[in-house]
Amino acid sequence: MEKISVAVLGATGTVGQKFITLLENHPFFEVRELVASSRSAGKPYREAVSWKQDRFIPETVGDLIVKTTDDKLESRILFSGMDAEVAGPAEEAYAERGHFVISNSKNHRMDKTVPIIIPEVNSDHFEMIKAQPYKGAIITNSNCSTMFLAMVLAPLHKAFGVEKVFVTTMQAVSGAGYPGVASMDILGNVIPFIGGEEAKMECEAQKILAEMKDGELIPAPFVISAHCNRVPVFDGHTESVSILFKNKPTVDRVKETLRAFKGIPQEKQLPFAPKQPILVFEEENRPQPARDAWKENGMSACVGRIRQCPLFDIKMTVMGHNTVRGAAGAAILNAETLVALGYLNEGKAK
Amino acid sequence: MEKISVAVLGATGTVGQKFITLLENHPFFEVRELVASSRSAGKPYREAVSWKQDRFIPETVGDLIVKTTDDKLESRILFSGMDAEVAGPAEEAYAERGHFVISNSKNHRMDKTVPIIIPEVNSDHFEMIKAQPYKGAIITNSNCSTMFLAMVLAPLHKAFGVEKVFVTTMQAVSGAGYPGVASMDILGNVIPFIGGEEAKMECEAQKILAEMKDGELIPAPFVISAHCNRVPVFDGHTESVSILFKNKPTVDRVKETLRAFKGIPQEKQLPFAPKQPILVFEEENRPQPARDAWKENGMSACVGRIRQCPLFDIKMTVMGHNTVRGAAGAAILNAETLVALGYLNEGKAK
Amino acid sequence: MEKISVAVLGATGTVGQKFITLLENHPFFEVRELVASSRSAGKPYREAVSWKQDRFIPETVGDLIVKTTDDKLESRILFSGMDAEVAGPAEEAYAERGHFVISNSKNHRMDKTVPIIIPEVNSDHFEMIKAQPYKGAIITNSNCSTMFLAMVLAPLHKAFGVEKVFVTTMQAVSGAGYPGVASMDILGNVIPFIGGEEAKMECEAQKILAEMKDGELIPAPFVISAHCNRVPVFDGHTESVSILFKNKPTVDRVKETLRAFKGIPQEKQLPFAPKQPILVFEEENRPQPARDAWKENGMSACVGRIRQCPLFDIKMTVMGHNTVRGAAGAAILNAETLVALGYLNEGKAK
Amino acid sequence: MEKISVAVLGATGTVGQKFITLLENHPFFEVRELVASSRSAGKPYREAVSWKQDRFIPETVGDLIVKTTDDKLESRILFSGMDAEVAGPAEEAYAERGHFVISNSKNHRMDKTVPIIIPEVNSDHFEMIKAQPYKGAIITNSNCSTMFLAMVLAPLHKAFGVEKVFVTTMQAVSGAGYPGVASMDILGNVIPFIGGEEAKMECEAQKILAEMKDGELIPAPFVISAHCNRVPVFDGHTESVSILFKNKPTVDRVKETLRAFKGIPQEKQLPFAPKQPILVFEEENRPQPARDAWKENGMSACVGRIRQCPLFDIKMTVMGHNTVRGAAGAAILNAETLVALGYLNEGKAK
Repeated sequence: MEKISVAVLGATGTVGQKFITLLENHPFFEVRELVASSRSAGKPYREAVSWKQDRFIPETVGDLIVKTTDDKLESRILFSGMDAEVAGPAEEAYAERGHFVISNSKNHRMDKTVPIIIPEVNSDHFEMIKAQPYKGAIITNSNCSTMFLAMVLAPLHKAFGVEKVFVTTMQAVSGAGYPGVASMDILGNVIPFIGGEEAKMECEAQKILAEMKDGELIPAPFVISAHCNRVPVFDGHTESVSILFKNKPTVDRVKETLRAFKGIPQEKQLPFAPKQPILVFEEENRPQPARDAWKENGMSACVGRIRQCPLFDIKMTVMGHNTVRGAAGAAILNAETLVALGYLNEGKAK
Repeated sequence: MEKISVAVLGATGTVGQKFITLLENHPFFEVRELVASSRSAGKPYREAVSWKQDRFIPETVGDLIVKTTDDKLESRILFSGMDAEVAGPAEEAYAERGHFVISNSKNHRMDKTVPIIIPEVNSDHFEMIKAQPYKGAIITNSNCSTMFLAMVLAPLHKAFGVEKVFVTTMQAVSGAGYPGVASMDILGNVIPFIGGEEAKMECEAQKILAEMKDGELIPAPFVISAHCNRVPVFDGHTESVSILFKNKPTVDRVKETLRAFKGIPQEKQLPFAPKQPILVFEEENRPQPARDAWKENGMSACVGRIRQCPLFDIKMTVMGHNTVRGAAGAAILNAETLVALGYLNEGKAK
Repeated sequence: MEKISVAVLGATGTVGQKFITLLENHPFFEVRELVASSRSAGKPYREAVSWKQDRFIPETVGDLIVKTTDDKLESRILFSGMDAEVAGPAEEAYAERGHFVISNSKNHRMDKTVPIIIPEVNSDHFEMIKAQPYKGAIITNSNCSTMFLAMVLAPLHKAFGVEKVFVTTMQAVSGAGYPGVASMDILGNVIPFIGGEEAKMECEAQKILAEMKDGELIPAPFVISAHCNRVPVFDGHTESVSILFKNKPTVDRVKETLRAFKGIPQEKQLPFAPKQPILVFEEENRPQPARDAWKENGMSACVGRIRQCPLFDIKMTVMGHNTVRGAAGAAILNAETLVALGYLNEGKAK
Repeated sequence: MEKISVAVLGATGTVGQKFITLLENHPFFEVRELVASSRSAGKPYREAVSWKQDRFIPETVGDLIVKTTDDKLESRILFSGMDAEVAGPAEEAYAERGHFVISNSKNHRMDKTVPIIIPEVNSDHFEMIKAQPYKGAIITNSNCSTMFLAMVLAPLHKAFGVEKVFVTTMQAVSGAGYPGVASMDILGNVIPFIGGEEAKMECEAQKILAEMKDGELIPAPFVISAHCNRVPVFDGHTESVSILFKNKPTVDRVKETLRAFKGIPQEKQLPFAPKQPILVFEEENRPQPARDAWKENGMSACVGRIRQCPLFDIKMTVMGHNTVRGAAGAAILNAETLVALGYLNEGKAK
């Protein structure tokens, strides 16, 4: 199989670098184009970027000449890690020109015809792109904190009917990009605020778990209350979660349900699909971001301390790798699923 | 006024060292006796202790010869920072011999006749000691995480009737004593578990806010669900809190109520009384442990981000200094109140 | 004694905030004027600043209206925490207008007639200001890393003749100001580079320990090699130091010499003078930044592990509070000494 | 090729766990026996160990029943991560019974006939084992801090003659094992002392770089002065190094020499051999432990900031992964070399 040429938008940023790192030696995709701001344009990537990853720049990518959003791109699939300040109109322009924009940016997530995809959960939402007013399409993944909550709520909602959710996050600094959080603000400290994060967490999961009815989304009807905190952790968002259900499950039923959770990526054995999308831990003090974020290559939601809640029904700890499954890795799995479902070959028709 | 002689029990431990540090130059009390394990006994404190505080050992304390629990003590007031493994029978024995044991240990907190005192909240509970079967008495302060939650719930419960509380803690390593948490477990990490902590948080506040009726405590009738996490912070426990009230208050009424909160320590201007027991912050990202734990000398509960909760009524961030107001400082304020209310002079009669 | 009015230049920055915090209730000085960039000008300080200190803004300072460098100042003494980008010409302009600029900025440190003062070491260098081409004067303190090295070398050089010095620093993030070092760069990491720092450390101490001969400085003749590293510490620079001497001292003689070190600030009992400018520790694992930086209110150099060096003569660990004795506190002590020596009353004549 | 059965001694400890993790799917070796203290003996490893690695326990290893030092072992190669308290006589006993003990413990490193091997540097020292009074042999790797210094000094000494070395370390907490350093001692702190570490660093490199003459080692004649510090880093020791040479090289010659360095492991393409044993960085602020420790799978020494030293000739930053190339990985590479050189097949005769 010949590799599919892809471009990375926002290639010099934190998410862009993560895309490039994760796509090295990818069996489907090959990074052949890079787009960044005009400051970087015309330079070899190696010189344009302030590389922050713990692996070296892939040889062939380092030599690519950086383009701007004015340049025409050859690749059909574009991975977007663009800043929210510019992603809005830029991603639309690419979609109009026929590209599939697989975006990690927040700008279009809540657009009526743009799906927020978690392929194990709602790959039927890919159908929404047919209603998009573009020759191509925009496909998003959720916010990094929503991701792990939504992955866990999905099978539980299906099985028991989720009604109310309290979630308190302890989020890693890598979620804020670079330079992001100043060390003087976070060393040995907790910042009990992340701009816009609680609002995202309180509405995205309902869209992801929405039912499609006659091409319309009917948001899942549960209510979420989120407290978002930043902690001195590099990678890995941890969440303390309490859930009220319509049909009360036992702790054991919750564990079984989470462990049994699988979807299209597992069925089709996609390259970035974790074997086990949800890992359930039995140790009393796990999962932990520093120890568990890289389990299953950072593509699983890790869950532990599943127990009774004195106020709601079940409480638990949820954790996942915010820049892999919570960002770049999620977008890559979305693109793999898009390809596997045949959307690429037949344009937007399945 | 001549100073009152006091002893520190568990003098070489973390809490014991904190007692000694905080009591230096105290206007009421002077540390004249120290008790530790037999390993330290007979040595000058300076040689017995592995001193970890950021101030030097007070000159006079360093020269004291360490005693054991077998030795008779002259002091009427004993500050106990004993390990839970030994505090149970040892504190009882001291109380039987007529001492007032002001204890930071968990062992006797839930005893029927032992009060958990927060002097601004329930100084009427001091009366319980009359029912104690000892010549002296045992008086406790709450667990460090409960402390700040209970301080905040107290005026709100009185004004609006608390019904349900969700709390997720992000606790400092100093709460685990020394050596406590291994650095390999917590550097850049979150541990979503602290042994026994959630159970304590779910029941202590109800006892502290209990009404006394005919010498009996009627626990406050609200339900608490706690998630306890350890984070890489040195001092200062942070808590994300959501509260459901009987009588729904506005955000502004909550702020006013917290700011107006005062009690006997403020009235009597006790040395360790914070001017403002609850500090309300208006900045969107405060309080923070590294920046705010030492406000009012570490004796206040700091509250911020008071806002509507989509599920309950009000949510907020609560934070305080776990080894000062949450431990040694709390015990000292308890002792000051005991003296101010006249219990010491007249034995256990007021 | 009526308080002397002072201004803080660069008042909204990290060093400016530290000046304001440290000068609260100062017995000599009162902050009555604040200067910052035009963005802040005209606003009450409380609104102009993003306050990052762990104490509240002093009441009276919060209400001051921020001025710009274009405004005329009433105060004779100006504490400068200006950014290096603007401090150069701005400080000169103030000095020309007759102000005493007590500067923490690097810009004028190596000027021929500008002294780098450590009052315990070289208060005779104040005489240099008479040769300055200004109606007023510019007086600097050293770089924060140089400070503690120079304080330690001073008495040792006098007693034994320093010839060669190796120093490796492990510097706190607060030394880089705000926002300074990104958390993604320093959490659980070491950055083996601080721009310009090694060059400063390799030349400033020789100027501070210079002999004055006929109004000229003859730099101390030793050679320093510096390795500068950033570590995840909030406050307190630690330095591993090896020294080669002309006259070989024993370890005990070194300790005695450091402990005996005193100067004009101690003699005149100035408010910011540490009783003991150099604290010598006997514990094998001290000094440590998190435990010892605040000893003597952050105004002492802490020294420990004094021992034989297999290559040079003596090796040791040196540590001090980089934003107190290493920056704002140093400038305040310089100003106190200036006043105590009578320079202020008689203009630049002593 | 059939896999060689190996045992891990001290299997439940930090180094033992690392051996097991690194040996998963090793092309030469298979872990078939585990030895730990009597407390663990008789249990399946899965139940005996408090597993702290970020990967799951390899399936087959988890089921192994833990043995004690009293049990006879089948494996010829034993990887020892035993505590120094017990490793001394235990390792000797195994060697006497004919095993090849590949030890990471310090106990026998300075024994006259025991080599400290870095296969790229001194694989001729394997010959020393013939003089050992055992049927089998003991082979050690160096202390973790010595490792990276020795790897860098080796080619430079050969080319230019090393005479004097100053080294200041900033060491990761994983070097102290588990529980090791208390979080209260190291969060936001530097500990300027590591017991016994400076002594090891000042003598091991000379033995590693010793010339073999008539079966005797003539230690390399340079002198090292070491300052050892602990910093809040998880993995990766950083070292600031200044070197005085007999024949003064330029900075460029030093870089070339380091980059050209290769040895037997590279020649024989051993599984754990890094392609490039020394990685030279050109960025001004690299190498850094959090970013670079895992380069080349943690098996390379990383070097950067190679520049002139005002006192000696050259200074630089050296960094490497202390628990991989600095411990378990080093031992595995030693064993691979042992096998590749044929010592295993022919007993101790080459």
